[in-house]
Amino acid sequence: MEKFKDVQSENPVNTYRLDRVGLTNVVRPIKVHRGKTITLVPTFRVFVDLPPYRKGSDLSRDIEALEDVVEGEVEGRTKGIEYVAELIVDRLLERHPYADYAEAQLTADYFLERKNPKGRKTTEKYVIQGIAKKKNGLKTTRYIGVTATGISVCPSAMKTVSALVGRETDAPPFISHNQRNDVTIIISVPENMDIEVDKLIDIAEASMSAPTYELLKREEEGMLVLQAHQNPKFVEDVVRDAVKLLIKELREVPDSTYVEVRSESYETIHKHNAYAEKKGTFGEFRKELSTN
Amino acid sequence: MEKFKDVQSENPVNTYRLDRVGLTNVVRPIKVHRGKTITLVPTFRVFVDLPPYRKGSDLSRDIEALEDVVEGEVEGRTKGIEYVAELIVDRLLERHPYADYAEAQLTADYFLERKNPKGRKTTEKYVIQGIAKKKNGLKTTRYIGVTATGISVCPSAMKTVSALVGRETDAPPFISHNQRNDVTIIISVPENMDIEVDKLIDIAEASMSAPTYELLKREEEGMLVLQAHQNPKFVEDVVRDAVKLLIKELREVPDSTYVEVRSESYETIHKHNAYAEKKGTFGEFRKELSTN
Amino acid sequence: MEKFKDVQSENPVNTYRLDRVGLTNVVRPIKVHRGKTITLVPTFRVFVDLPPYRKGSDLSRDIEALEDVVEGEVEGRTKGIEYVAELIVDRLLERHPYADYAEAQLTADYFLERKNPKGRKTTEKYVIQGIAKKKNGLKTTRYIGVTATGISVCPSAMKTVSALVGRETDAPPFISHNQRNDVTIIISVPENMDIEVDKLIDIAEASMSAPTYELLKREEEGMLVLQAHQNPKFVEDVVRDAVKLLIKELREVPDSTYVEVRSESYETIHKHNAYAEKKGTFGEFRKELSTN
Amino acid sequence: MEKFKDVQSENPVNTYRLDRVGLTNVVRPIKVHRGKTITLVPTFRVFVDLPPYRKGSDLSRDIEALEDVVEGEVEGRTKGIEYVAELIVDRLLERHPYADYAEAQLTADYFLERKNPKGRKTTEKYVIQGIAKKKNGLKTTRYIGVTATGISVCPSAMKTVSALVGRETDAPPFISHNQRNDVTIIISVPENMDIEVDKLIDIAEASMSAPTYELLKREEEGMLVLQAHQNPKFVEDVVRDAVKLLIKELREVPDSTYVEVRSESYETIHKHNAYAEKKGTFGEFRKELSTN
Repeated sequence: MEKFKDVQSENPVNTYRLDRVGLTNVVRPIKVHRGKTITLVPTFRVFVDLPPYRKGSDLSRDIEALEDVVEGEVEGRTKGIEYVAELIVDRLLERHPYADYAEAQLTADYFLERKNPKGRKTTEKYVIQGIAKKKNGLKTTRYIGVTATGISVCPSAMKTVSALVGRETDAPPFISHNQRNDVTIIISVPENMDIEVDKLIDIAEASMSAPTYELLKREEEGMLVLQAHQNPKFVEDVVRDAVKLLIKELREVPDSTYVEVRSESYETIHKHNAYAEKKGTFGEFRKELSTN
Repeated sequence: MEKFKDVQSENPVNTYRLDRVGLTNVVRPIKVHRGKTITLVPTFRVFVDLPPYRKGSDLSRDIEALEDVVEGEVEGRTKGIEYVAELIVDRLLERHPYADYAEAQLTADYFLERKNPKGRKTTEKYVIQGIAKKKNGLKTTRYIGVTATGISVCPSAMKTVSALVGRETDAPPFISHNQRNDVTIIISVPENMDIEVDKLIDIAEASMSAPTYELLKREEEGMLVLQAHQNPKFVEDVVRDAVKLLIKELREVPDSTYVEVRSESYETIHKHNAYAEKKGTFGEFRKELSTN
Repeated sequence: MEKFKDVQSENPVNTYRLDRVGLTNVVRPIKVHRGKTITLVPTFRVFVDLPPYRKGSDLSRDIEALEDVVEGEVEGRTKGIEYVAELIVDRLLERHPYADYAEAQLTADYFLERKNPKGRKTTEKYVIQGIAKKKNGLKTTRYIGVTATGISVCPSAMKTVSALVGRETDAPPFISHNQRNDVTIIISVPENMDIEVDKLIDIAEASMSAPTYELLKREEEGMLVLQAHQNPKFVEDVVRDAVKLLIKELREVPDSTYVEVRSESYETIHKHNAYAEKKGTFGEFRKELSTN
Repeated sequence: MEKFKDVQSENPVNTYRLDRVGLTNVVRPIKVHRGKTITLVPTFRVFVDLPPYRKGSDLSRDIEALEDVVEGEVEGRTKGIEYVAELIVDRLLERHPYADYAEAQLTADYFLERKNPKGRKTTEKYVIQGIAKKKNGLKTTRYIGVTATGISVCPSAMKTVSALVGRETDAPPFISHNQRNDVTIIISVPENMDIEVDKLIDIAEASMSAPTYELLKREEEGMLVLQAHQNPKFVEDVVRDAVKLLIKELREVPDSTYVEVRSESYETIHKHNAYAEKKGTFGEFRKELSTN
């Protein structure tokens, strides 16, 4: 006889299945090994479903599933944040035998060494995500995501200011407003394939007017500003160019690969933000361009 | 000939349709009239789609569409936050003739006078949402949402502590841990029908162990704590009870009505949160209970 | 004999006076009357001190003090957010007879109708603060604060880009990077004097390269961008110009008047922000300029 | 002749000294070595003052000063986050020869392995701060800070509920409300002395009703809840007990050592928070207790 009642396992009547039960706001350092070993400090969200015949989900098992992966012998396999998510959903399903579905989401700051316009070394901050979802008996679906912050220069104000000052041409580069721009790409990772976050970050940065750098000495700053103004883009252009680069750079992914791209621009001439978004599969995107 | 080039209307080649282009983080006070007149200060998100043959969406028209509704003669019709959203999507489609889809989301703090356990008047804060989505030629779908913060007491720890101290029974009320709990309900509003945010807030509060109050004198505080401990609930219970109350209190809504219910509990014995969620239609929920 | 023990009034031994005990994150709508009547939804922080001979502060009295002011007959006197703060500290000291000090801080979104560069009406968002601090037997010190968001254009990059492209002059306006800039001014309000938040907002906006507007049609956008680029400023310039405007526009305030000015710029070429700050009294500032 | 103008070094007339000019929101991983090597991802704020005869502060030098420390040969000396801050202010003053004052603030998540009530290993999250301030020619002042999240149980409601249910005693433990509580301690580090963040975290946790743990199996959860309810505390008690523990545990620090202690409690029966605070020097605190 158990001394302490297992209330979660009680059998309620007349009640409902729940889609997702679990933990949010779990923060904990992990190590991943992709070429080099890096320490990430992700925020975790982990969920399983709950059948109608069971009162509660044993939430302490969610922490145990997470610790199994983070501490366990399996750590050697964690090549990236999406693998950590995948290992966690496997453990969630093992530790919650009543569950039919499990999900894990990890979001973390991520740093890359970059070269600024004159080649000076600088350390840049990005955000990466790893997501895994699994239904019992089916394969796990993994996603990776990145957010890169860069600069976008408005193509419309550049032409208007050209006209206002009586400039003979309205071609770039010229005076305009420019903004911090966050580009987010989330993509499903095809089976037996890896997609590198570094590659997605490259694509996100390349889709804006220019990347940005923490360290820019005088001439480097001028070069970056000029580069950005030679390449003016709306948020709409940013999303479309990111989609085009994804199609071009990830030729090998199957048509069923899902992707979403978002650009949010913190307008300097307004107090609000501009936003653009496109979602779909590589198959749909490949077909769309060939038909419009 | 125009003096200032309309860059947004340029016709790019080989590019993509965008699902949503628009503004986020627009904040602006509005007045709504539902019985009484109240001032809300919503944060707005407004979007339209963008066809492949057009470079940009005229984002200043989004502000004009919003101002049409907020300032215009139409204000008299704005019975609630979801009506404001509906009026905005109509104006978005008028002002963006190239768009086939429009969406508006408003989120605002909302206040109700409540009576605490001894009937003392207190002013309580909630969050409400109004959402509208429209495809050209189809009816607008409206949603309203509420988030209410209350208290939930853990049913499991109550039994464990009872056992630890050798209490003869493990029935409520007894010592346990308790937490701030946010319950969110989002529901599609059926055509020609109103669903009141106040009613949804009542349901959200009734689904927790107890509501909470800004003003509680000594005895009132004790009464509330006792009431909450007589009614211990997991986040799982909170979501299921909210679903049951919705089914019971909104008998008149059709089976196609969509609803999602979430409970997030800011655990006092952990640094993370507990979370539960259920999504679906009233038809699915009505059928589920009759069959499991 | 009281039925419910007053634990707060217990007399601990060997313990400490506390500087501030009270409530944070109280949110509640209020009405203020300065010319017109407006609804604000401030977040309140209210504190009193606590003597060593008393275990606790009666925190429900903080809510009562706040409600006295918000609901009470005194509302007619609340000309501005700093008056609400002042009335609250009076009530805090009345309701906490053991306290020797009281403090109230209110922070709220605030909206003004503005004219954009071509005179079109637009509604702009600011943040205002009202603060009051009182020691028993002394006069209350009131503060008001404002935060305005505008645009600042970098003067240094403008010259560097001029040199990079071989422009003959490096005078404004020319290509540069520009950013969202938040200017905050907090000032002690002299006795028997009012300082209007609208005047401080005007000063904050005038100290940047240009104000910003939610609504800008094509030509208006170009005019604003041009205006900002004709007036490039570092965060350092913004703070110094705000100080100069304060000295010029508030000639009537006594030397003892305290002020602090901050400018934070969300750099578009970096992921970090630039920041500048100056604090002191009008007397110090008046003397500083005449001596350096 | 320089090709690119040094605008920051221009000499404005009739202008003001600025107290602090620099960068906020710089995020970058660092390694510190205190016994073990750990990776931290702090958010940095770095400032110098600016004399009236100089237009701007060379902000790229702030990043260089930071990189000198993070990347440089000096890394071996960085025993803790406050040493990193100290090294940065030295480099700030070297790189800004016109500056008379420098300041650096670092804030980072920090993790410790803990044993829960039955000795099970769990990883807990805290926040730590390192601050350094230096005026030219004077010694650097270093500060360290910690924030620990635990649980506090209300002593007053426990007695009221005891009375409401006719309990014979009102002694702990009994039903009450309990909350997440954040305790923050910031202390100046005396010259030639180290104060360990781990020790401050122990003190912060010991001052609450109980620490909290990410992993608690059934009995462990009951034990923790019981422990917390045996030890009810107001936020006022938490701050006073933290001060007492500081005085007791840090006997060796001189009277001039500055300390501030704050407790913020996310009330479960209210939507607002309770707050208490005490600031002063060890000398003042030591004297206060001996005289009241």
